[in-house]
Amino acid sequence: MENGSRNNALKPMDSEQLREYGHQMVDFIADYYKTIETFPVLSQVQPGYLHNLLPDSPPDQPETLEQVLDDVKEKILPGVTHWQSPSFFAYYPANSSVAGFLGEMLSAGLNIIGFSWVSSPAATELEMIVLDWFAKLLNLPEQFLSKGNGGGVIQGTASEAILVVLIAARDKVLRRVGKKALEKLVVYSSDQTHSSLLKACQIAGIHLENCRMLKTDSSTNYALRPESLQEAVSGDLEAGLIPFFLCGTVGTTSSTAVDPLAALGEIAKRNEMWFHVDAAYAGSACICPEYRQHIDGVETADSFNMNAHKWLLTNFDCSLLWVKDQYALTEALSTNPEFLKNKASQANLVVDYKDWQIPLGRRFRSLKLWMVLRLYGAEILKNYIRNHIKLAKDFEQLVSQDPNFEVVTPRIFSLVCFRIAPVDNDEKTCNNLNRNLLEALNSSGKLFISHTILSGKFVLRVAIGAPLTEEKHVMEAWKVIQEEASNILASQVN
Amino acid sequence: MENGSRNNALKPMDSEQLREYGHQMVDFIADYYKTIETFPVLSQVQPGYLHNLLPDSPPDQPETLEQVLDDVKEKILPGVTHWQSPSFFAYYPANSSVAGFLGEMLSAGLNIIGFSWVSSPAATELEMIVLDWFAKLLNLPEQFLSKGNGGGVIQGTASEAILVVLIAARDKVLRRVGKKALEKLVVYSSDQTHSSLLKACQIAGIHLENCRMLKTDSSTNYALRPESLQEAVSGDLEAGLIPFFLCGTVGTTSSTAVDPLAALGEIAKRNEMWFHVDAAYAGSACICPEYRQHIDGVETADSFNMNAHKWLLTNFDCSLLWVKDQYALTEALSTNPEFLKNKASQANLVVDYKDWQIPLGRRFRSLKLWMVLRLYGAEILKNYIRNHIKLAKDFEQLVSQDPNFEVVTPRIFSLVCFRIAPVDNDEKTCNNLNRNLLEALNSSGKLFISHTILSGKFVLRVAIGAPLTEEKHVMEAWKVIQEEASNILASQVN
Repeated sequence: MENGSRNNALKPMDSEQLREYGHQMVDFIADYYKTIETFPVLSQVQPGYLHNLLPDSPPDQPETLEQVLDDVKEKILPGVTHWQSPSFFAYYPANSSVAGFLGEMLSAGLNIIGFSWVSSPAATELEMIVLDWFAKLLNLPEQFLSKGNGGGVIQGTASEAILVVLIAARDKVLRRVGKKALEKLVVYSSDQTHSSLLKACQIAGIHLENCRMLKTDSSTNYALRPESLQEAVSGDLEAGLIPFFLCGTVGTTSSTAVDPLAALGEIAKRNEMWFHVDAAYAGSACICPEYRQHIDGVETADSFNMNAHKWLLTNFDCSLLWVKDQYALTEALSTNPEFLKNKASQANLVVDYKDWQIPLGRRFRSLKLWMVLRLYGAEILKNYIRNHIKLAKDFEQLVSQDPNFEVVTPRIFSLVCFRIAPVDNDEKTCNNLNRNLLEALNSSGKLFISHTILSGKFVLRVAIGAPLTEEKHVMEAWKVIQEEASNILASQVN
Repeated sequence: MENGSRNNALKPMDSEQLREYGHQMVDFIADYYKTIETFPVLSQVQPGYLHNLLPDSPPDQPETLEQVLDDVKEKILPGVTHWQSPSFFAYYPANSSVAGFLGEMLSAGLNIIGFSWVSSPAATELEMIVLDWFAKLLNLPEQFLSKGNGGGVIQGTASEAILVVLIAARDKVLRRVGKKALEKLVVYSSDQTHSSLLKACQIAGIHLENCRMLKTDSSTNYALRPESLQEAVSGDLEAGLIPFFLCGTVGTTSSTAVDPLAALGEIAKRNEMWFHVDAAYAGSACICPEYRQHIDGVETADSFNMNAHKWLLTNFDCSLLWVKDQYALTEALSTNPEFLKNKASQANLVVDYKDWQIPLGRRFRSLKLWMVLRLYGAEILKNYIRNHIKLAKDFEQLVSQDPNFEVVTPRIFSLVCFRIAPVDNDEKTCNNLNRNLLEALNSSGKLFISHTILSGKFVLRVAIGAPLTEEKHVMEAWKVIQEEASNILASQVN
C-alpha cells in the first residue's frame, strides 16, 4: 500500500485510495457472486489446512492489495463454506443481498460507535424508527412500539436477545423475592428450543436442574403442549420453586415446530412469568398475512425476537428484539460512568441503547435494515418469502412421491425434514443409511444440507432460503439426493 | 431497485447489480471522507429530530438507491457524530482505515456464519493464525498462543471479553466450591476500571456488594496499589468470602492509568484468582518496543484483551482476547445441539469458536485484521501509534505552557487530561468553568472532546488517535480551546 508521505507516515484513510481500492474490492466480490456456483458448497479442506499456507508472523513491510486478493482466492476461498451459494440448504439461511451489503458498507464507512444517543443521534433514532416499521410489518401489538414503554432494538444474534431478556426477567423477580432466591428460579421451554436458552441460563447463573426442557413428540409435531407446561409449573410451585421465565418458539431449529403462543402465554401470565417468543427463523414469514397466524398470541408475550439476517436479506448480524417494558431491560443492564455522561442522557430525553444490550459499543446496523426495506419494499419482500415456501412445497411433494423416502414432519415454512424411509421398521439401519447419505451428499460439494434427530430418527433437513436459490437449484438438489440414495441403497442390498 | 424478472420476483444478489450499486456506494463513501471536515464533529441535532423526517411505515414498493443516498445526505448525516473526523478527540478513538474497510466489505460480501469450524474452516483458522501473529507483535507469553492450551479469539467488544472470562472464572471456582457459594465470590479492581466489569458482574450474578472497586488517587496516578488489593483480599478471606477474579487495567478510560501487573498478578496467583488484563485502548501502543514495558507482568495474567478497533485501524468491532486455558472458556460456554454436530467437532480436531463467546453466530472478522496487518505491515503500524503519541506530547506541552490551564495527570500514551486551572483553590468554580468550556467547545462543531472526573476534579480529555488527525488539527484544536477558555474566563471576570 502506498504511503502518503515520506518517513513511513501512513495516511490510512485517504479518500482517493479508498475509492480506488474500494472499486477493486467491489469487482472482486461481484466476480465472486458471478462464479459462486463453481465452488464446492461445503468446504472440503482438512483441519489445519491454512496453517501451512500462511507465514508465522505478520509482515514488517506493507504488501499490495493484489497480493492479498490473490491469497483470498487461492488460500481463503477453498476454506469457505459458501452460505450464499444457491445450493446451500443447511442450518437456516443467512441472507445477503445487494441492499444489505450496501448497508454494511455504509455502516463500515461511517464507522461510528452508537452506544449513547449523543455518540451519533441518527444511529439510535433510525434504529427506533426502523424497528417500529418492522413491528408494523409483523402486526405486533402496539405495546412493542417505541412510543410507549416498549420498543425494539437490534441485537447481534438471537442468543444475545434471549440472554438480555432472561437477565431482565431474573432481576425483576429477584427484586421482588430477594437475590438469594436465585437458586429457586425455574425456566421453561420445550426440548426443541434453541441451545442458546440453556447457554443463557448458564451465563445468568440459573441452576441447570431448574431448566425444564419439556418433552415434545410427533403428536404435536414437536410443539410444546400447554398441559405439559401447566403440569411442570404446578409441580415446581408445590416444591417451593419460583417459575419466572418461559420461552416459546415459532419455527424451531430442528423442524420449524410452532408452539401455541396464546395458550402458553396465558399460563405465563397467571404465574407472573416473563414470556419470550423466539421466532428467529420463522418471524420473517410472518410479514405475509397468510403466515401471520403463526405468531397469533404474541400479544401475551413480554418480548419477541426475529432475525432479519436469516431470511430477510439483511446481512449478518441483525437480530430484532422487541420488549413491552424497556425499563426491565435498562434496570438490569444500565451503566452510567462519568466519561459517558451527557446532557441528553442525564435529562432522560433519549434512548441509550447501550443499556439494552451486553456490549457497550454498537455499530450502525439499522442502516442495512433500512436499506433493505426501502430498496425492496414490503410487497417484494413478501413475495421473496412466498417463493421460497413454494419451492419447499415442491420439494416436499417430490420427496413424498418417492417410495424410497418419507417426509418426517409436515412442512410449515421453507424447511423440509425427510429421510430415506425405514424398511421393516429397522430404525437403526435406517439411521445409518441417512447418516451415510448426508455424508455422501456434503462430500460431493454439489450441495450442503444438515441434519437433526427427532424422536430418535436421524433426519435430513433441506432449508430453502438462500437469496440465489431458484427452482432449478432445488430440482438439481433433489436429483443429486435421489442418485446418492440409490447408490447407497444399492450397495446396501449387495 | 430494478426487479430481475416479471411477477415482482426479486434477484437480491445479482452480481451485476452489486457491481453497479457497489461502485456508487464506494464513491459516496470516498466523497464523505473527502468532505468530512465540513461537518460539525459532534452532531448538533435535537432529540427526536429524525422522527418527523421519515415516514411512519416502510414503503410497499421499491425506492431507488438515489433516493436513499439523498436521504443519507440530508437526513442521516446531520445526526451523525463523526468519529472519523480529524477533530474527533472524545472518548477513545474508533479507527477506520482503507484496509479495515476493505476487510469489512469482504466479510459482508462472503456473509458466512463461522460458529463452528465446519461452517467455514477459513474463518476459524485465519482467526487463530492472525491472533497468534498479533500475540507475537505484543510479545505475549507463549501460553497465549494457539499451539498449546491457550489461544486468541475475536470478541465484539471489551465488554464481551470481560464477561466471558468472568463466567469462565466463576464456573471454574464454583466447580471446586459448589454452586451455592456464588454469593461468596468476590471481584477486585480499581475504581478506575471500565464500567463493563460491573456490568459483567451484574449479568453473571455476582453480588454487587462483593465487587471491590478499590480506591485510587493521584499519588499513584490512579493506578491500583498492590497493598490495597492485598488488604482487601485478606479482609474478605477473614470474612469467609472467596476472592476469585481480579481485573487489572493498562490504560484506564478516564486517564490511561497503568496498574502494576506483576505485583497484582502475584497476589492473584497466591489466592488462586483469575487475573484478567484489560488493555482495550493502550494495548495497541504496546506493539512498539518502547511502550511494551506497560504490559510487563502480563505473564502472570490468565487473560489479556485489547481492541484493534480502537487505535489500530481495524474497523469496529474487533476486540482481541487471549487466554491461557481455552478449556476454562469452553467448559463454561459450550453447547452441543444435534443440529450442529459434525465429524470434525465430534473428533475434537478443531476449534469451534462458538464455545469461546456469548452468541452462536459470528462474522468473518479476522479478514479485516489480516488485511490491516498485511496492507500496512508492522513497522508502519508502529509509526502510526508513535505519531499520535508525539502529537499528544506536543499538545501536553502547549497546555502546560499556558498559565490558564493545567495538566491533571501525566500523559502516558495519546490522551491528555487537563483543565482550566483553579484560582485560589476554588474547585467548585473551577469545575463549573470547565463544564462550560466543554459545552462551548462541543457546541461549536469545530471539535469534539469528552470529560471525566478525577478526585472530584472535572477534567477535559483530549484523546488523539483518529486516523485523519494531523498536527494541524491538534494545533487548531488547541487554538479553539484557548479562545473559548478566554471567552469564558473573561465573562467570569465581568
